[in-house]
Amino acid sequence: MAGSTYGKIFQITTWGESHGAALGVVVDGCPAGLPLCTDDIQIYLDRRKPGQSKITTMRREADQVELLSGLFEGRTTGTPISMMIRNTSQRSADYGEIANCYRPGHADYTFDAKYGFRDYRGGGRSSGRETAGRVAGGAVAAKLLREFGITITAYTLSIGPVKIDRSKFDPDAVLTTPTGMPDPDASAMAEAYLADCMKNYDSAGGVIECIIDGVPAGLGDPVFEKLDANLSKAIMSIGAVKAVEIGDGTEVSARQGSQNNDPFRMKDGQVTKTTNHAGGILGGISDGSPIILRAYVKPTPSIFSPQQTVNRQGEEIELAIKGRHDPVIVPRAVVVVECMAALTVADALLLNAAARLDHLKKIYGR
Amino acid sequence: MAGSTYGKIFQITTWGESHGAALGVVVDGCPAGLPLCTDDIQIYLDRRKPGQSKITTMRREADQVELLSGLFEGRTTGTPISMMIRNTSQRSADYGEIANCYRPGHADYTFDAKYGFRDYRGGGRSSGRETAGRVAGGAVAAKLLREFGITITAYTLSIGPVKIDRSKFDPDAVLTTPTGMPDPDASAMAEAYLADCMKNYDSAGGVIECIIDGVPAGLGDPVFEKLDANLSKAIMSIGAVKAVEIGDGTEVSARQGSQNNDPFRMKDGQVTKTTNHAGGILGGISDGSPIILRAYVKPTPSIFSPQQTVNRQGEEIELAIKGRHDPVIVPRAVVVVECMAALTVADALLLNAAARLDHLKKIYGR
Amino acid sequence: MAGSTYGKIFQITTWGESHGAALGVVVDGCPAGLPLCTDDIQIYLDRRKPGQSKITTMRREADQVELLSGLFEGRTTGTPISMMIRNTSQRSADYGEIANCYRPGHADYTFDAKYGFRDYRGGGRSSGRETAGRVAGGAVAAKLLREFGITITAYTLSIGPVKIDRSKFDPDAVLTTPTGMPDPDASAMAEAYLADCMKNYDSAGGVIECIIDGVPAGLGDPVFEKLDANLSKAIMSIGAVKAVEIGDGTEVSARQGSQNNDPFRMKDGQVTKTTNHAGGILGGISDGSPIILRAYVKPTPSIFSPQQTVNRQGEEIELAIKGRHDPVIVPRAVVVVECMAALTVADALLLNAAARLDHLKKIYGR
Amino acid sequence: MAGSTYGKIFQITTWGESHGAALGVVVDGCPAGLPLCTDDIQIYLDRRKPGQSKITTMRREADQVELLSGLFEGRTTGTPISMMIRNTSQRSADYGEIANCYRPGHADYTFDAKYGFRDYRGGGRSSGRETAGRVAGGAVAAKLLREFGITITAYTLSIGPVKIDRSKFDPDAVLTTPTGMPDPDASAMAEAYLADCMKNYDSAGGVIECIIDGVPAGLGDPVFEKLDANLSKAIMSIGAVKAVEIGDGTEVSARQGSQNNDPFRMKDGQVTKTTNHAGGILGGISDGSPIILRAYVKPTPSIFSPQQTVNRQGEEIELAIKGRHDPVIVPRAVVVVECMAALTVADALLLNAAARLDHLKKIYGR
Repeated sequence: MAGSTYGKIFQITTWGESHGAALGVVVDGCPAGLPLCTDDIQIYLDRRKPGQSKITTMRREADQVELLSGLFEGRTTGTPISMMIRNTSQRSADYGEIANCYRPGHADYTFDAKYGFRDYRGGGRSSGRETAGRVAGGAVAAKLLREFGITITAYTLSIGPVKIDRSKFDPDAVLTTPTGMPDPDASAMAEAYLADCMKNYDSAGGVIECIIDGVPAGLGDPVFEKLDANLSKAIMSIGAVKAVEIGDGTEVSARQGSQNNDPFRMKDGQVTKTTNHAGGILGGISDGSPIILRAYVKPTPSIFSPQQTVNRQGEEIELAIKGRHDPVIVPRAVVVVECMAALTVADALLLNAAARLDHLKKIYGR
Repeated sequence: MAGSTYGKIFQITTWGESHGAALGVVVDGCPAGLPLCTDDIQIYLDRRKPGQSKITTMRREADQVELLSGLFEGRTTGTPISMMIRNTSQRSADYGEIANCYRPGHADYTFDAKYGFRDYRGGGRSSGRETAGRVAGGAVAAKLLREFGITITAYTLSIGPVKIDRSKFDPDAVLTTPTGMPDPDASAMAEAYLADCMKNYDSAGGVIECIIDGVPAGLGDPVFEKLDANLSKAIMSIGAVKAVEIGDGTEVSARQGSQNNDPFRMKDGQVTKTTNHAGGILGGISDGSPIILRAYVKPTPSIFSPQQTVNRQGEEIELAIKGRHDPVIVPRAVVVVECMAALTVADALLLNAAARLDHLKKIYGR
Repeated sequence: MAGSTYGKIFQITTWGESHGAALGVVVDGCPAGLPLCTDDIQIYLDRRKPGQSKITTMRREADQVELLSGLFEGRTTGTPISMMIRNTSQRSADYGEIANCYRPGHADYTFDAKYGFRDYRGGGRSSGRETAGRVAGGAVAAKLLREFGITITAYTLSIGPVKIDRSKFDPDAVLTTPTGMPDPDASAMAEAYLADCMKNYDSAGGVIECIIDGVPAGLGDPVFEKLDANLSKAIMSIGAVKAVEIGDGTEVSARQGSQNNDPFRMKDGQVTKTTNHAGGILGGISDGSPIILRAYVKPTPSIFSPQQTVNRQGEEIELAIKGRHDPVIVPRAVVVVECMAALTVADALLLNAAARLDHLKKIYGR
Repeated sequence: MAGSTYGKIFQITTWGESHGAALGVVVDGCPAGLPLCTDDIQIYLDRRKPGQSKITTMRREADQVELLSGLFEGRTTGTPISMMIRNTSQRSADYGEIANCYRPGHADYTFDAKYGFRDYRGGGRSSGRETAGRVAGGAVAAKLLREFGITITAYTLSIGPVKIDRSKFDPDAVLTTPTGMPDPDASAMAEAYLADCMKNYDSAGGVIECIIDGVPAGLGDPVFEKLDANLSKAIMSIGAVKAVEIGDGTEVSARQGSQNNDPFRMKDGQVTKTTNHAGGILGGISDGSPIILRAYVKPTPSIFSPQQTVNRQGEEIELAIKGRHDPVIVPRAVVVVECMAALTVADALLLNAAARLDHLKKIYGR
């Protein structure tokens, strides 16, 4: 199956494995005329790059993007934008030991079940490195959205048991703390917790929150292509995410309607809501309030303590994983969440252009 | 946008509004040769039908399905299966009052923002009645899956604050309690809670759990078309769902890897897992364990107590909704969750047929 | 495979067999706000209807369309438009004889090869009746295009050896001659030729030409989604069509570049071409000139003279087809060509709305 | 719009411009387990490569493919196969003159109309160089098809007025004559004709025929996804093709049914046809006979004699094109036709795997 393409008219196709020659993405359907340069992409990739602190894998990759097509004189031409990142730090030897066994919590067994064999080096296609392509593509989407006043910010809400204190929310800290937490105190506590995990050859999970601001009311669709449905798919397609919430999410199930409905009021001549339990989406369509979502991320399955498992021959064995692994995926996944959200909203923005006869007449001058 | 089609090769297209002449679905891509009759569909629709207890809307609809195409001598022919349900109990007069105002928690405002106007009668296309088409289509998918030993069971896990006691799990109760709870005691408590809500002109939410049993290892895809990503989209596309979990869901974010990884062992010559925190999916691909998911449903937004809102003219008003509304959506949504899961797994099953050269050679006799 | 859906964002899904209960179409993705009524559809269906002259099948079908969804107060709502036509003149007994044999030139054998069995009554899904759904859907597309000044006219260019005389072109005759020829003299000759064919238990083919006028320059796409590529697929998907030409078509292969290039000139401040060998499309994108295409239609394969063939048991037999069949498909296929062209151009018009940043800014008021 | 992807489950996405850094393709959906190496691709690319004779452009490109992903130990893994070709012979200076004017027969004007501006260097995305990606992708499809006994052969049928003599058909000559004609005598005449064209600063068109052998009966679909409809789109999406025929093509329109129907007979226990006017497809589905199609190619629009045209400022000018251009596109387009056919049939082969319940049961062991 062709499962490496995302989006309906703003579309990305990612390719590449952890230990292949390179990874990349083709962005197709980006409107013509968008100013774009390598820096617009690199700044996003740098946020995902490994080896930036002691709580990420020691694998060092420059993750330098090469822009191969789709631009002319600094603007997009409306044709495919191809981007490539060479792999430079493949140490396949690290992975020889796992060629023959199924790591718990990983896709080794399911790949073999599906395809009959697998590229076992570094997880192959199911490695987190695949997200480099998503981030490069998402950076283009984010640039496009900013032209329409739409901005997206994701950050770490919790790592293991450590949660941010919302009263101390500092947006600048997202990019400066190693955890991606917008609360330096919580971040310090999370780092201590992670140090502990690593000492015990263990790993941690966490939660990422994402705010999409400035989305005009009217994006999305009322049935299968609901904006929240597409956001859920986008976020759940990131490896290790096991739950997705929109707005108040799981909490709404225990509420009564009178508590959960957001009253409409007028503000500056605009329809607005006095609360935002819905998280900016009603009936699958954006309502003009900020869109809020959360991704729940499982602890890194690669742990150094010994685990029970089986090998390809069907023998029960004990496995102690070696190699270079993030003790927590969350900080590096923050920008991936942001990018998958950007891709989803960009596609909705473009699709919505054809939703109304009066809008089409504006374009075609009728 | 064409947003009423779901699935890649096992595909449904639903159509119809709450107060139009009829609703329906076209199922396209169902393999030829599947035995199918009206009863296979009707039994699913009857589970969704309103007016069956005092905790569902008093609107009475026979919801009798008419099978219009795609069958010959009791089997599917491989061509589109069209099914239609006539609306019989439209009382549009009930909705005249809301033609001009935006009900909190509903899609009235977002429809107007998107399309410029809307069919306000009974919520039009965003009414829960649209799910009749999904259920008719899902019934076909479920029938197909049973040919491969795959069964799907959903049930109510909680309503408001009332949760089932898993130690009292009684699968038969799902179809006999008015709440869809597999625990008659909890169900009785939930009914009492709902009676209270109704007395206070209020409504309730809840949680639905779904178990997909018998899925062979290997279905799904490693990147954007992850089986859990598609399940999330499918479930989140059901109106009122605000969160989706796979396996242990939100809980995994606070765990350590050693607690969350499921060890592999051998059982009867098969690779198996001794626990199932992952909920049957690893790296986006089924692992042979039961697939487990949960949908968190918001309280019915239609409540009879007065609410603050605005009208189309931008005036702030107070609104007390009239009409016929379910005090809780959950019991009738159980079968919708089941059907959206069935559609998703059926599509994955079909797509997977082309994943391996050796499988294709079996079909083409090479 | 789900092969009954056409279009990317203006999308139709047809369903139904020749001898089932009904046929129909779901139009999804039509912009909101388009005035539409049953008559807009019926007028197109009436042009396709059988039994209107002695050169079409004697099967009498009212082909009365029922509009089931997607409209409110006389305008499209942006949600799926479902349309159904009941079959009223099924005489399955006529087809009992062919249940077991493979008619030459028909899809009987290939259906069995693909699906293992088939609905043999009247050709089932591969009957020309399937095009009723296309015509109903195409009527909506044509209505939409007229809002943008785009009109589509198809007509019969030739039947068997009889061609129209372009110097006598009379557009009104298309709807008044039984052949669909815009030249009453040629039409009379064609009728005589067909009478001869019928007397000899034989059938005829022909050519349909289609002109799409008023298409703004810029619709289509430069690579796989070229406007001419999509038109070719659309036209070739009509049963019995064996060749498609754009502009001067096959003739260009024998020309030199200096003869075939269309010079650009200015006219009323607009870029225009002094000739139109290209048929209105350059590099896959409309150039503002009329789009011209031709469909070559094979003779009706159902003939009453005896033919050699085989049956399902693999026995060689002789077959003389009975039943009611058009001696030529062309006159009734004219409106089908028109409708498939309309659907293709409407989709291109909608998709193009998102092609440029400056156009999108017009819609979103940036 | 995302128009650079072709195929439903065997899918290619091409990218790159004539004068950008590189061109490439991502093949997604290829089944796992197919033996594949760089040579399998290079041998196809070498057939398309420019600069191989005096009748192709003098631009010299090594067109060396780099295989970047999707392979492990010499076999496809089921994940995307990314391939890249660096451009090495860009001489943008040649194109400075056309930056501001619209070449007749080219997409310059339509690109500006669609996107507002364009990468004018060498035709940008609408250059014939884009087909390098198609050929690399098609080579993978062709390799896959050979595993199922399906082979594809295309060749030049005519150039200008010079046609091959079918009685002298020599399949080996296709790869040895500079024209791609399977008839060395005709090829010599065509070369003489082309020399004449070049002397007169003019260019030529021609016809390509393609035979797809070994296709099992049953591939394709009865409605919109007819195998001939998809082949037509595939072939018409190649720049400069203006007509497509299946089987006897345009000729069938003047025949009677008794002449055009292919009788079925038994041969070696198989259903077969005694003639093949239909070109191997009945009702959109392959019938087991060879599939035959023809593409009519217009003369190269780039000619050196002066032409009337306009510039971006709307001034009427005279243009004499310079640069390096093929006097005829046909010989290099032969392999492109072959590859587009291969991609189309491969997709149909994979999609058909899910068409029947009994076939699916073979895969899943039920």
